[in-house]
Amino acid sequence: MDIADRLMTLGHEVDSVMERYLERDAHRDFAPVAKYQIGVGGKRVRSALTLLSCEASGAERSRALLPAAMIELIHNYSLIMDDIIDRGEVRRGKPTVLAKYGETMALLAGMHHREVLDEVVNDCSHPDEMRALLIDAVKKTIEGERLDILFEQSGREGSYFTKHRSKNVSIESYFDMIGKKTATLIRAACLAGALAADAPQILQESLAGYGWKVGLAFQVVDDYLDIFGEKTGKQRGKDIIEHKLGNAVIIFALKALDREARNHLLSILRTEKVSTSLLKSALKLLEGTRARQMTYELAQKLIAEGKRSLENLQESDAKTSLLDLADFVGNRLY
Amino acid sequence: MDIADRLMTLGHEVDSVMERYLERDAHRDFAPVAKYQIGVGGKRVRSALTLLSCEASGAERSRALLPAAMIELIHNYSLIMDDIIDRGEVRRGKPTVLAKYGETMALLAGMHHREVLDEVVNDCSHPDEMRALLIDAVKKTIEGERLDILFEQSGREGSYFTKHRSKNVSIESYFDMIGKKTATLIRAACLAGALAADAPQILQESLAGYGWKVGLAFQVVDDYLDIFGEKTGKQRGKDIIEHKLGNAVIIFALKALDREARNHLLSILRTEKVSTSLLKSALKLLEGTRARQMTYELAQKLIAEGKRSLENLQESDAKTSLLDLADFVGNRLY
Repeated sequence: MDIADRLMTLGHEVDSVMERYLERDAHRDFAPVAKYQIGVGGKRVRSALTLLSCEASGAERSRALLPAAMIELIHNYSLIMDDIIDRGEVRRGKPTVLAKYGETMALLAGMHHREVLDEVVNDCSHPDEMRALLIDAVKKTIEGERLDILFEQSGREGSYFTKHRSKNVSIESYFDMIGKKTATLIRAACLAGALAADAPQILQESLAGYGWKVGLAFQVVDDYLDIFGEKTGKQRGKDIIEHKLGNAVIIFALKALDREARNHLLSILRTEKVSTSLLKSALKLLEGTRARQMTYELAQKLIAEGKRSLENLQESDAKTSLLDLADFVGNRLY
Repeated sequence: MDIADRLMTLGHEVDSVMERYLERDAHRDFAPVAKYQIGVGGKRVRSALTLLSCEASGAERSRALLPAAMIELIHNYSLIMDDIIDRGEVRRGKPTVLAKYGETMALLAGMHHREVLDEVVNDCSHPDEMRALLIDAVKKTIEGERLDILFEQSGREGSYFTKHRSKNVSIESYFDMIGKKTATLIRAACLAGALAADAPQILQESLAGYGWKVGLAFQVVDDYLDIFGEKTGKQRGKDIIEHKLGNAVIIFALKALDREARNHLLSILRTEKVSTSLLKSALKLLEGTRARQMTYELAQKLIAEGKRSLENLQESDAKTSLLDLADFVGNRLY
């Protein structure tokens, strides 16, 4: 089994916990809706990180089962709401909650997740710390989502977007956005595992630092694969079709291109409906710059920093898995 | 000042608290969205009930300020989400969060409310009990909303509704629905005040019982006014236009009507677009039954029971206000 399969097997240990909590107080006609997102799949990277971080801190990983369920439920909560916002119909080849049950039921399922989260936290061994992680993670996810949307150059209606849209995204703003949207929860996943293990401060910080860097790398790699990926099962250039400036490759390219080419790329991102030929032009512009190389190097740098953050940890199988996972993220690039 | 104005003044004491918590961690471009619902108004009945219940239990009402803010934030959270579900554009003459900022921002504002709720609860003097009230209230509100929607006879797309729609609503199912949708939170409002006052069990139960009955009465009166109300500022028969079976008047009428008239009324509720003349026919059918009288008597009975629930409480200005409030709810009927 490669690291992805091992992680997935590990991470799925939380499924029955999630199910049990999601079922509680749910009417029999509502329970399938509430639990549906579990079956939509996902790699369970986040829950696996919590379990591994607990083990790498020297404790039995079973102590982190509830915190791992909490982390995965936060992720699922955000996916359900995200699909409502983005009208997402398919995830991993399956209909989303939105597509399967409609917007009203998806919204109620999302709200139900948030109540369940409080109940899971109540039953954790460090409820106050876990709740602080939960609130921080959801608040940052909300803000990350807001920023990501404001980085879109077209496609949303309403004066809020025309008023607050970012027509220019610096690499710093990009990092701020992906930190909130993606890295905060992955950091929280690792920290929750360390907390569950009663790890000393220094280990908590090491694991949190690892999660933060790997979380950023995750998103950078996602951006890279969106533009250059093959055999990912997703359409190439989806971010361009969705008018997103918030993609590392695009940001690096815009900096590298001359004025004329930059304006051309921006005009494509601002086109209401990006045709296949416009998409091709955009991809060609991106390929003509050093953006690919820069994005690749950025991801590798983040992964190396993440791995280095684990130096304080004693050797263990769990630590090895964490290091392997970081490498695996990097190896998705080619 | 009549009781409504006095309550409103009292209830608005929580506004600055809500504002402070909603602003926390909110980007300056997000804070106005997060706080917008406060300004949409509302009578602040729920927060006033918490403050009065605390006072009626013999404590300073300032002790219930955070619990009262919690209750009002739950209410606002549910309104924001409800407006997304029902495409509600106007409340009390003002644009809803949805209408003002669009669906994406409304959803993010709603999610933000739920995080803020956890932070308010953290700062309450009985966090565990308050959190239990919060979770119970939101879960029941979700289920009440689901039931209310399933009682609609047309107008929602998706197989979930065609599959689970209730074509027949008993008075018991109606009470189950309004208990969850409306009375649970009003009960929680009173109980939160009693908890904040460290009231003995018997007072907690008295106030909770009062809140439950008055909460049910609230909804029954709303149903009555929807059908028979004049000068309410709302369109008469909105529930008919919205295909709702979950209205006390309609349920009583359906029981009282002969088969032909009942089928006619049901067919109107099932008409995709209820025209003015169909609405008139429906109202005429309802007026021809004892449903008006029965709904009136039901509301008065609930109000009397709610008032009786306060018998254990010592006399106080706050108790008098609670009794006045119950009467006020009943006096909206004519």
